[in-house]
Amino acid sequence: MSPKKKISTAVIHRLPKYYRHLGELIDTGVQRISSRDLSLRMRVTASQIRQDLNHFGGFGQQGYGYNVSSLYNEIGKILGLGKIHNIIILGSGNLGQALAHYQYFKHRGFHIIGMFDKDEKIIGKEVGELKVMDIDQIPTFIKENNVEIGAIAIPKSEAKRMAELLVENGVKQIWNFAHLDLHLGDDVIVENVNLTESLMRLSFRAALEHRG
Amino acid sequence: MSPKKKISTAVIHRLPKYYRHLGELIDTGVQRISSRDLSLRMRVTASQIRQDLNHFGGFGQQGYGYNVSSLYNEIGKILGLGKIHNIIILGSGNLGQALAHYQYFKHRGFHIIGMFDKDEKIIGKEVGELKVMDIDQIPTFIKENNVEIGAIAIPKSEAKRMAELLVENGVKQIWNFAHLDLHLGDDVIVENVNLTESLMRLSFRAALEHRG
Repeated sequence: MSPKKKISTAVIHRLPKYYRHLGELIDTGVQRISSRDLSLRMRVTASQIRQDLNHFGGFGQQGYGYNVSSLYNEIGKILGLGKIHNIIILGSGNLGQALAHYQYFKHRGFHIIGMFDKDEKIIGKEVGELKVMDIDQIPTFIKENNVEIGAIAIPKSEAKRMAELLVENGVKQIWNFAHLDLHLGDDVIVENVNLTESLMRLSFRAALEHRG
Repeated sequence: MSPKKKISTAVIHRLPKYYRHLGELIDTGVQRISSRDLSLRMRVTASQIRQDLNHFGGFGQQGYGYNVSSLYNEIGKILGLGKIHNIIILGSGNLGQALAHYQYFKHRGFHIIGMFDKDEKIIGKEVGELKVMDIDQIPTFIKENNVEIGAIAIPKSEAKRMAELLVENGVKQIWNFAHLDLHLGDDVIVENVNLTESLMRLSFRAALEHRG
């Protein structure tokens, strides 16, 4: 089994949270933190934290705790941060615009460098610092720019075809907001943000609360 | 241990997917499906499906497969669907507007009935079928309407205070898009949609792919 198979979904979900909390600790001047204090802050057990970090070699010293900024940097490296990741957005509707205006992405090295639409009334318009381009320009734009991530912010009916277009042109990371599963080959990574399913999880947990 | 503690995050994530796939099967006229065919479609193992559904009593018959529409209805009930869930959105920026325009929510019983902002330039404007209201009106609006879910689509700096305002006024389900953890009491359910963390998971898996 290759190392990448061993990292569970739960760990993948916790890593960005460690990173965020450590960043907040740095902002408030904390240099060192015990696994107990980190666990109280994160609301996971200290042993869970140790287990999670042991996937990557562990970073604490017995009785000494964690050096906040070095742990922050190491987790950042594990997360593939510390370099620039260029993103293009397909779809310039409300969601595409919300993504284009989201301030935290750039701070983490995620740069939105292009936005595309098929609607002639919108092509050429400005969204923040971007000018909306015609989807026909996607292949050329990808060739000329180092595009790592394609965000799919278009309706379900077009999503599969447009995701395939991105993959054909060499994009290996798809950030999918459309309401369908995309299977684009073993070497393509798809991260889904399905808002309807998110609402269903909320209502499921509420229903469970009432039953339980 | 109460029943609600036994349902893992992974199961909670799969239930809406079962629901979506079963809905798609209904749309294409499929009435019965074997656990093997459902597993191929869902890309989880047949034994995983059986295990997941056994949490709720199981729904298949040996050698007979699943009745698609009855399984769809049962999972819908488990998810707390089949009734109307009223939502208010705090924040009428791009994200709030994207949520207000999202078509699938209503189809699943999630009705967005109010939108609030503190910006006087925006209050009174129309977003789809909604008229943006002043955040000062939130307590009255909650009293007069059956608000189940509050969506937090405002900056981090205001998010905690506004989420607390919702909870003080009786809202027990918070759909949080702000870039922080909200801890609002044991009886309040928070579903987080953290887009920066979603991007980090994508870049983590891409970095892992290169290493692995």
